[in-house]
Amino acid sequence: MRESDLLKHVYAFNRALPDHVAIPPGDDMGALALGDQTVLITVDQVADGVHVQLGNTPLKLVARKAITRNLSDVAAMAARPLGAVVAAALPRRFTEAQAKELFDSMRATAEAYQCPLIGGDISMWDHPLLLTVTVFAEPAGIGPILRSGAQPGDAVFVSGQLGGAWQKDGGGAHLHFEPRINLARKIAEHAGDALHSMIDLSDGLASDLSHICEQSHAAAEIHLADLPARLPGRDGPQHALFDGEDYELCFTIAPDAADNLPTEIDGVTLTKVGHMLGEADRPVESRLWLRLPDGTRQPLTKTGWEHHA
Amino acid sequence: MRESDLLKHVYAFNRALPDHVAIPPGDDMGALALGDQTVLITVDQVADGVHVQLGNTPLKLVARKAITRNLSDVAAMAARPLGAVVAAALPRRFTEAQAKELFDSMRATAEAYQCPLIGGDISMWDHPLLLTVTVFAEPAGIGPILRSGAQPGDAVFVSGQLGGAWQKDGGGAHLHFEPRINLARKIAEHAGDALHSMIDLSDGLASDLSHICEQSHAAAEIHLADLPARLPGRDGPQHALFDGEDYELCFTIAPDAADNLPTEIDGVTLTKVGHMLGEADRPVESRLWLRLPDGTRQPLTKTGWEHHA
Repeated sequence: MRESDLLKHVYAFNRALPDHVAIPPGDDMGALALGDQTVLITVDQVADGVHVQLGNTPLKLVARKAITRNLSDVAAMAARPLGAVVAAALPRRFTEAQAKELFDSMRATAEAYQCPLIGGDISMWDHPLLLTVTVFAEPAGIGPILRSGAQPGDAVFVSGQLGGAWQKDGGGAHLHFEPRINLARKIAEHAGDALHSMIDLSDGLASDLSHICEQSHAAAEIHLADLPARLPGRDGPQHALFDGEDYELCFTIAPDAADNLPTEIDGVTLTKVGHMLGEADRPVESRLWLRLPDGTRQPLTKTGWEHHA
Repeated sequence: MRESDLLKHVYAFNRALPDHVAIPPGDDMGALALGDQTVLITVDQVADGVHVQLGNTPLKLVARKAITRNLSDVAAMAARPLGAVVAAALPRRFTEAQAKELFDSMRATAEAYQCPLIGGDISMWDHPLLLTVTVFAEPAGIGPILRSGAQPGDAVFVSGQLGGAWQKDGGGAHLHFEPRINLARKIAEHAGDALHSMIDLSDGLASDLSHICEQSHAAAEIHLADLPARLPGRDGPQHALFDGEDYELCFTIAPDAADNLPTEIDGVTLTKVGHMLGEADRPVESRLWLRLPDGTRQPLTKTGWEHHA
C-alpha cells in the first residue's frame, strides 16, 4: 500500500470540511482560516532506517533534516515560517548528551529560519529514533501557491540539480539541502500572478510533477535533454527523474513570464524542463510524457521509459 | 533523563522568542498570534508498548486515544478544536485493512469533536506503531487558561475520578476517557475570571499539580481524605495521587467562586481536593504538601508519603 493511496482513502471519507479549512488535505501544506488570517500547517517524519541512517550520520544532520524537510514544504507554498513543534521517540540507549545534541540542533536549525520551537513531546522506547515535526507558516504577501493551479501552456521549471541526493550509505545532498524559502518568494515576486503552481521535490520529479498534473486536471511533457542532472553520465537524467529527496522546487509559470524569469537567483539555477500540455495536444492515456532527444515522445511511468538502444 | 528535564533544557536555550509566540513552551498548548487571532497548538505521541499495548487493544481504541490525548490538552486551555494533522509510522506487516481501520477511526474520533484531519504523513517501517497527532484550537470566548495563574488561597479542584486508569494488560479508562472540552468551558463560564489555572492530568495529580505550582511560583496542599479515588481500598488515594493517564482536569479557582461551583456538571463530579498556600503558610522546603486524616501535614514527593502504621 502506498502512502498517497492511504491518505486519499482517509480524506475521501472526510465529511464536508468546515469553512475554516482554507486548504484541504492534499497539498504541500494544509491551511486554517482564522478571521482574516491564514495559518499553513505541514507535518513530516524522519525515521532512522527510512529517512536517515543514524549509524552513518551525525546527529546534528539528522536534526537538521527533521526541520528542513518541513521547511521545504513552507517554500513550496511560497510562505513564511512561524514556528514548529517537535515530537520525538528516543531510543532508550540514547545518552542525555545525545538527546541534548539532537534537540539543540533542531532548535538551532529552526531558529536559523525564523521558526522557533514552541512545544514538544518526548517518549523513550526500545526502538529506533523517530522525529515528527509540525511546522506553521503564514502567507508572505502573496497567496499560498497550490499544486492545483497549473494551466495548459505553462512552462515547467525546477530549481537546482536533481538526482542522486541519497547515497547508499545514507549520506548525500538530502542531509545538506537548503530549503528554498527565500527562492520561492523571489520567484513569486518576479512572476506575480503568472506563477500558477508549485511543489517541492521529495518523491522525485516524475512523481511530484504527477501530483501537480492530477490536482490541476492537466498533463505535462518533460524534455529529457533539459534535465539538470546532478549525476554525470548516461544515467544522470534517469536519476533526475526518479530519485527522491532533492527538496528542490518544481513550479509552472505562464509562458510570457517564463521568458522573463532569470536563469539564476541567488546562485541557484532555474531550469525549464518542459511544459504543461494544452487540451489539443494532451493525450488522455498518460498525465506525464517524456520528449526524447530524437524528438519522439512517450508516456512516462513510475518505472521509467523505453530506452532505445 | 526525564522528558520534562530535557524539554526544559531545550527551551532554556531558545533565544528571545518573537512577539508572535503568544504562549511559549511549557503549558498544555503553545500559541501563535496572527493579527488579532490566536491559534493554540499541542502535539502528543501514542507508541505501541509505551502508551498502548497493541496486542491487547482494538485498533479503533488505539486510534481514539491518539486523538483524545491531544483533545485533553485543548480542554485544559478551555479552548475549541479547529483541526488536526496525523503522522504515522506503520509496521510493515500492517495490512491495508488495518491501516484503513486505524485512519478511519482517527478521522471519526476527530470529527466527533469538530476537529477535522487536514493533513498527514505516513511511513512504513519494521518497528512498532507510532502515531503523532498535532491539534490546533482557538480560544472559546475566554482567554486560554494557563498553568501559571494559580494564586494563594485558590481552591484546587479535579474532575471525575482518579487513579487506576492503566491496567496491567494495557486496558482501562485511558482508552475510553472523555476529553473534558465542554466541561472546561462550562467551568470557565461558571467561574469567569476566578478560574485562575488549569492542567489536564496525564502524569498523575501529584506531578501535574506540581507543574501548576512551579509555573505559578506557588505551593499547594492536598487533602488525602478528599481525593476522588477510582480504586477502592486503602491504596485508592495513593493511586489517585500518583497514577497517570486520568485525562481529567485539575484547576484552581478563587475561594468565593469555589463555593458557588456546582458539585457536578453534565454528570461529572467536581471535587475540591486542596488549596494553594499563601505566603504566610507556604513552607519553602516543598511545593506540594499532603494533609493526612489525622490533621498532620508532610511534604509530598514523587515517591509518595510516609505511611504511619
